[in-house]
Amino acid sequence: MLAYGELLAFDRMAADARLAPDLSRQAALAEMAAAEMGNYRRLADRLGELGAEPEDAMRPFVAALRSFHDNTEPGDWLEALTKAYVGEGISDDFFREVARVLPPGSLADADRALVLDVLHDDGYAGFAAAEIKAAIAADPKVANRLSMWARRLTGEALSQAQQVALERTPLTALVLSGIDGGSLEELFGRLTAAHTARMGAVGLNN
Amino acid sequence: MLAYGELLAFDRMAADARLAPDLSRQAALAEMAAAEMGNYRRLADRLGELGAEPEDAMRPFVAALRSFHDNTEPGDWLEALTKAYVGEGISDDFFREVARVLPPGSLADADRALVLDVLHDDGYAGFAAAEIKAAIAADPKVANRLSMWARRLTGEALSQAQQVALERTPLTALVLSGIDGGSLEELFGRLTAAHTARMGAVGLNN
Repeated sequence: MLAYGELLAFDRMAADARLAPDLSRQAALAEMAAAEMGNYRRLADRLGELGAEPEDAMRPFVAALRSFHDNTEPGDWLEALTKAYVGEGISDDFFREVARVLPPGSLADADRALVLDVLHDDGYAGFAAAEIKAAIAADPKVANRLSMWARRLTGEALSQAQQVALERTPLTALVLSGIDGGSLEELFGRLTAAHTARMGAVGLNN
Repeated sequence: MLAYGELLAFDRMAADARLAPDLSRQAALAEMAAAEMGNYRRLADRLGELGAEPEDAMRPFVAALRSFHDNTEPGDWLEALTKAYVGEGISDDFFREVARVLPPGSLADADRALVLDVLHDDGYAGFAAAEIKAAIAADPKVANRLSMWARRLTGEALSQAQQVALERTPLTALVLSGIDGGSLEELFGRLTAAHTARMGAVGLNN
């Protein structure tokens, strides 16, 4: 799921780069997209080591992830950045939760380290946040438009996540198994709190 | 020109990856697109060292290179591969000619080495050639369609190259200066012969 997520993130960031207002921003986004393919390669190699064809391993997640992206096509540069900032923030948090619940043991430890390592560093989030804040500073009305856009993104993400949870019961069981003592509500609570903090940090309302 | 060419090659290969018939071919093309951004970074850094803003240095070539790509949007996976195989073959040969005529001297030697180094290695050409040959083997009629497509590509490339030559007289003068004793016809002859050989190698007619 993470491997296909990287491939799709590449695809969408590369397309979004066309929305950039100038060549240096276009190049900046293109370079971030290119970095996703380095992560993809590491995950695909690891899938191969585990005896899986990357293509087979990714296939079950294609429909949900593509639906999310197809239903949230950004209309302009700021929508594209907000989508990446909000969407990758939530999905990175989710994959960190999954990495956390991988059972202890040397193999799983290596996988946990790999997953944590390929999750986005703050370079992209920082770039997106700076652009969003500058746009809101220049025109406060932008905050309202982007806040509504972000709500549409999270709604769509929840809908697709639910679909994956229903269809991919092993993944769902893994996530649930790690909650030990806690509850699904607590997991959602953590993801929501982090999302709300990210929104506030750039001047958007949840 | 080469820096913007890399940025645009990234953009178009990333878009063409969507035309791939399966996820592993999509990933293969996406990885090649990502590699262009590594080349772009090296060229942009070098432009910076020379005291130029990459964006300013690239701007004069934006219109011609974009026109070429806009006028030759591939309709399917094989057209995309043929375009990259034919188009990057010719443009790599052209940049090698330019590198060759850079005046001797340590600065120019470093630039020559950089230009030659970022030109595509045979990884992509080999991938594209194998796909084109396999498609022709499966259906010989494909050769005719792709040969016509390649002629359209070279016609469009010549038209845009002429435009650049007229508008960018310093670049044109540099290329002409290096022909010493030879003629413009010889330069075109070399580029054409290499192109014809590449076409024949995958079963296409010039």
